[in-house]
Amino acid sequence: MNKRLKNFLAPILAVSVLAASGYALAQQAPKPETLIKWRQSVFQVIAWNSGRIKANVDGQYNKEEVIKAANTIAALSKSGLGSLFVPGTEQGKGWHDTAAKAEVFKDTAHFDELGAAFSKEAVELASVAANGDQAAVKAQFGKLGRSCKACHDDFKSKD
Amino acid sequence: MNKRLKNFLAPILAVSVLAASGYALAQQAPKPETLIKWRQSVFQVIAWNSGRIKANVDGQYNKEEVIKAANTIAALSKSGLGSLFVPGTEQGKGWHDTAAKAEVFKDTAHFDELGAAFSKEAVELASVAANGDQAAVKAQFGKLGRSCKACHDDFKSKD
Repeated sequence: MNKRLKNFLAPILAVSVLAASGYALAQQAPKPETLIKWRQSVFQVIAWNSGRIKANVDGQYNKEEVIKAANTIAALSKSGLGSLFVPGTEQGKGWHDTAAKAEVFKDTAHFDELGAAFSKEAVELASVAANGDQAAVKAQFGKLGRSCKACHDDFKSKD
Repeated sequence: MNKRLKNFLAPILAVSVLAASGYALAQQAPKPETLIKWRQSVFQVIAWNSGRIKANVDGQYNKEEVIKAANTIAALSKSGLGSLFVPGTEQGKGWHDTAAKAEVFKDTAHFDELGAAFSKEAVELASVAANGDQAAVKAQFGKLGRSCKACHDDFKSKD
């Protein structure tokens, strides 16, 4: 497909996918750059909360702080983040150029699978944070980190 | 306080507040621009999820979609977002110049109060989304929107 045709089709495809995912056609569908901003924002909020948990498991432990952070990551992992990676957003700039590899849009089954694995570990971390001690949280936080890395290895550009 | 002294003190103040809020001194405290990016990201994720709920209450209703979105907003409202508005971040650029008014850092009691009101409505919306119908969600979503606006009126710059 030539670039001009691709640029013409991208927003149409994005609108169709968003309509199917609950956005009313009557409502203005978000632009590709908005969708990219939103997904970049989700990962920033995950980074904020991962940093809080890391500070707590490596230093002085504040249970309430860890519960808030773990619950936030768990909710984001179940938010339907995958729906922000729609056709038309393979390339483009949100806050910065997207770091999504082309594979995200080609191997959606594997992308969804790693997303589900991340969510499983995040939900488990929220559960451990509510009931467990610093050592238990540290162990589960390690598992969560490995699920992040697995997905970044396959689907996040290193540039 | 002159500007040079203020610039010198800002990161020291930020480190002190972050240390008190659970960041170990041993760990590098996030820079003011990082904290501003994180809070701007939180509001973007809230915007994404508010848009999804609006699309569903105004158009075709997908209960699972609304539950995900409402749970995400509720978790963010309880995440401790206020801790990202620390001394040293009154001005500055995250993804863009901060829209926080000076009042955020002067009248923290009122800021916290409006934050708690927002969280109350967000948690209630998650509860209504789980059990209620489109009309009930629409009514509660209206209440949530008014709690957003109340805080923006007092604490968010319009520029």
